[in-house]
Amino acid sequence: MRKTEMNQQTNQGENGNAEPRAKSEKEAGLFDKQLSRRDVLKIAGAGGLGLLLGGGGAYGVMAAKETLNHTVRKTSSPAGSRAPFYGQHQSGIITPTQNFLYIASFDLTTRSLADVRKLFQAWTEAAAVMAEGVMIGDTNNHLNLPPSDTGEAAGLSPSRVTLTFGVGPSFFDSRFGLSGKRPASFGDLPAFHGDALLPEWCGGDISVQVCADDMQVAFHAIRNLVRIGRGTAVLRWMQEGFQRTGPADPAGGTPRNLLGFKDGTGNPDTTDTGDMNESVWVQPQDGADWMRGGSYQVVRRIRMRIEVWDRSSLADQEQTFGRHRDSGAPLGLKDEFAPLDLNAKDSSGQPTLPMNSHSRLAHMDGKVKILRRAYSYSAGMDTKTGQIDAGLIFICFNRNLQKQFIPMQRILAKSDKLNEYTVHIGSALFACFPGTTKGGYIGETLF
Amino acid sequence: MRKTEMNQQTNQGENGNAEPRAKSEKEAGLFDKQLSRRDVLKIAGAGGLGLLLGGGGAYGVMAAKETLNHTVRKTSSPAGSRAPFYGQHQSGIITPTQNFLYIASFDLTTRSLADVRKLFQAWTEAAAVMAEGVMIGDTNNHLNLPPSDTGEAAGLSPSRVTLTFGVGPSFFDSRFGLSGKRPASFGDLPAFHGDALLPEWCGGDISVQVCADDMQVAFHAIRNLVRIGRGTAVLRWMQEGFQRTGPADPAGGTPRNLLGFKDGTGNPDTTDTGDMNESVWVQPQDGADWMRGGSYQVVRRIRMRIEVWDRSSLADQEQTFGRHRDSGAPLGLKDEFAPLDLNAKDSSGQPTLPMNSHSRLAHMDGKVKILRRAYSYSAGMDTKTGQIDAGLIFICFNRNLQKQFIPMQRILAKSDKLNEYTVHIGSALFACFPGTTKGGYIGETLF
Ligand code: HEM
Ligand code: HEM
Repeated sequence: MRKTEMNQQTNQGENGNAEPRAKSEKEAGLFDKQLSRRDVLKIAGAGGLGLLLGGGGAYGVMAAKETLNHTVRKTSSPAGSRAPFYGQHQSGIITPTQNFLYIASFDLTTRSLADVRKLFQAWTEAAAVMAEGVMIGDTNNHLNLPPSDTGEAAGLSPSRVTLTFGVGPSFFDSRFGLSGKRPASFGDLPAFHGDALLPEWCGGDISVQVCADDMQVAFHAIRNLVRIGRGTAVLRWMQEGFQRTGPADPAGGTPRNLLGFKDGTGNPDTTDTGDMNESVWVQPQDGADWMRGGSYQVVRRIRMRIEVWDRSSLADQEQTFGRHRDSGAPLGLKDEFAPLDLNAKDSSGQPTLPMNSHSRLAHMDGKVKILRRAYSYSAGMDTKTGQIDAGLIFICFNRNLQKQFIPMQRILAKSDKLNEYTVHIGSALFACFPGTTKGGYIGETLF
Repeated sequence: MRKTEMNQQTNQGENGNAEPRAKSEKEAGLFDKQLSRRDVLKIAGAGGLGLLLGGGGAYGVMAAKETLNHTVRKTSSPAGSRAPFYGQHQSGIITPTQNFLYIASFDLTTRSLADVRKLFQAWTEAAAVMAEGVMIGDTNNHLNLPPSDTGEAAGLSPSRVTLTFGVGPSFFDSRFGLSGKRPASFGDLPAFHGDALLPEWCGGDISVQVCADDMQVAFHAIRNLVRIGRGTAVLRWMQEGFQRTGPADPAGGTPRNLLGFKDGTGNPDTTDTGDMNESVWVQPQDGADWMRGGSYQVVRRIRMRIEVWDRSSLADQEQTFGRHRDSGAPLGLKDEFAPLDLNAKDSSGQPTLPMNSHSRLAHMDGKVKILRRAYSYSAGMDTKTGQIDAGLIFICFNRNLQKQFIPMQRILAKSDKLNEYTVHIGSALFACFPGTTKGGYIGETLF
């Protein structure tokens, strides 16, 4: 497919397969469109599509198509580019990983499915305009009203912001009459060996994952969704994550986690539609029609014992992952992307990849794959221990939890050498809907 | 002064006045030097200057000069550039604001001034190599030792990282025999009207402010300083801040705070040496010789009541600051940088800038200036209220606290309309040392 064709396709809303993966930054031209909220401020205010929601006030969402022609401009800056919102799949799953994450889980305070539908309609409209870098709503310049957009992203570029919505297992209890729609593979996670889960980091009826290359743009998005949700949904938890400044840093490559190792090397290829259909997207034959083209998301908050890690030798650290710290290559090899050879032995006949090494165990038989999309977190000092509270917000997407994440995590929880240095303190599970097209809304297949 | 001359001067360590301010990004060429930690990994390990510290192990800090010739390369990416560490003043004060902040306060666990001196010597060496984007220490490739650098910034650019060190008023108690050295203007802050300070965000014997354009680079810096400090100093608190992705975003300008308003407009001009000597840098005639060329830093953690703010009208919001939300201009005017006219009246004879508006009150008589260098924070959900915990990490630098911050905050605490929407929950004060030159260390004028 030629570039212009792909570009057009992207504009038509088929973002799912057209998105380049992080490794091929040459293709970043695909995301060239850039838009400043400041330009939009000037043309906002007229002819918006108003949506009345909840008790908190009037929130209008300006229709994006009215403004795009005036404001789209070209740039080669990745920070300034758009990730298309509409498409067969939701964005933020196979979208090349952005630098910042906010992920929030909500509890519904309503028992009416109609309210939930209205919430997702309003969230969809807001998400679509934010993805274009447009201010939310049409009351940003009325002196006597609260502005419909909180304004802290005014003047900033879209920054490839993506918003990804899902529902948790608890959504299928008796409240909304949808218990019959719960997919067979989608129940609460089993308890895993070593779990030290804190209720404040677990569960939730519905979820939003926001990713962007600008932390302020990401904050703005989650904050405005929380605001729109008032009266219908309350926050249950919110987590913030980061990785190194990717595309902007010419020295970039696979990002490193806070244990200093490259993280993401063994991920499946998001540009390979076959692989994605195999491991990520729910297929027609999987049942639960409303999830076709969607994906199941696992969120684990994993604290790192960085002080313990910092005292262990380089050899210990490399044995833990089964990879070299410097290059990211499997032990004994030089190329980061060399395949793991589970049969390789060293001169004394020992396996080169230790039996309890993280990469080896997570690799399983080489056929079970998940799509990881993790971020680092640091959350100040732990007031109990006086140590830095930091770790990994582990996020992965699966076509079927029973066949992918659950058996994998069972093995890791039992045998992974990495467990000496980590502790799982949060856990949540969401069924992330398929995408939608203009005029539709995320969740329409279910509600 | 011609550019090449300035460039040389910068290399010679006179960073203080040569740094461009955020507004003049054209001058960013000054910070062109870029260096990848990955290149350095290869040449590290030989001939380093070893420093033995505390009980936690051996930490070597490689002398930067041995590697620079091999690794410095040119780029036009602001994310990749260096902020010089050595100079008359510490970096991170008048350095154009980077995108991310980590600020940590420590309590000393030693009573020996020699230990404190060793700590600052080791911190200085580590800071200098991190500012160059170099890995800390010379044991990063020894299999049997813990790596001297924790590695998560390997391969990343220096990202204009700055490290700024200070001591709090408590440092001058009886422990180190330095009570006679406490500057007359440097005592604990008075209690201000409305203060709701939480001990966990207050005080500290010593401090490090880390700023960088890459959050992972900033995290790496603070984490490694914490590590080096083990056995001598323990964390008291650590705060994380952000602003929008500045230089990388072509739509950038004055950043907005989380109330949606441009923040920083009224700051003095950091490129004006006269202004900086007047308001920021301690002068010979100020006493406390060891602070000459240093500056007094105030850190206030100010929580925003964003839900209340979000319900107030645009008129209310603009009256609160005395400025327009969209343009940042003083009320009634169009230009963001137009001077505040305290005498302006509207058609009904009322002051255009409300008497209790934040800008008006903070402007005082127009002669008292502080240098603000604030960052936004978001810290997940407040588990008590279910609301987003977000606000401003207010940081400012002063030549004399008694004449600048304290009278200003007295007025604001009493009358500022902004107080309806904010609450001060943390407070700390540090005397930030003057800079140092190669071979010296930060703090040498005092210890
Ligand atoms: C703090 C916790 C964790 C850290 C620091 C971590 C880090 C890493 C690292 C450094 C690698 C090697 C590079 C790569 O292939 O990306 C890796 C591989 C992998 N990890 Fe993790 N991981 C963590 C938790 C988990 C969990 C909970 C799972 C799933 C249950 C998981 C699944 C995988 C998989 C599937 C691979 C690729 C294996 C292959 O090569 O096929 N990881 N991880
Ligand atoms: C959450 C708390 C605060 C917020 C959101 C805030 C925000 C702002 C904003 C939007 C402006 C106008 C634009 C500008 O000139 O930068 C401003 C000005 C200013 N603020 Fe604040 N501020 C806060 C706290 C403080 C505090 C605690 C002080 C000092 C005690 C302070 C001192 C100043 C000064 C000196 C100015 C410039 C006034 C002038 O034009 O001369 N601010 N602030």
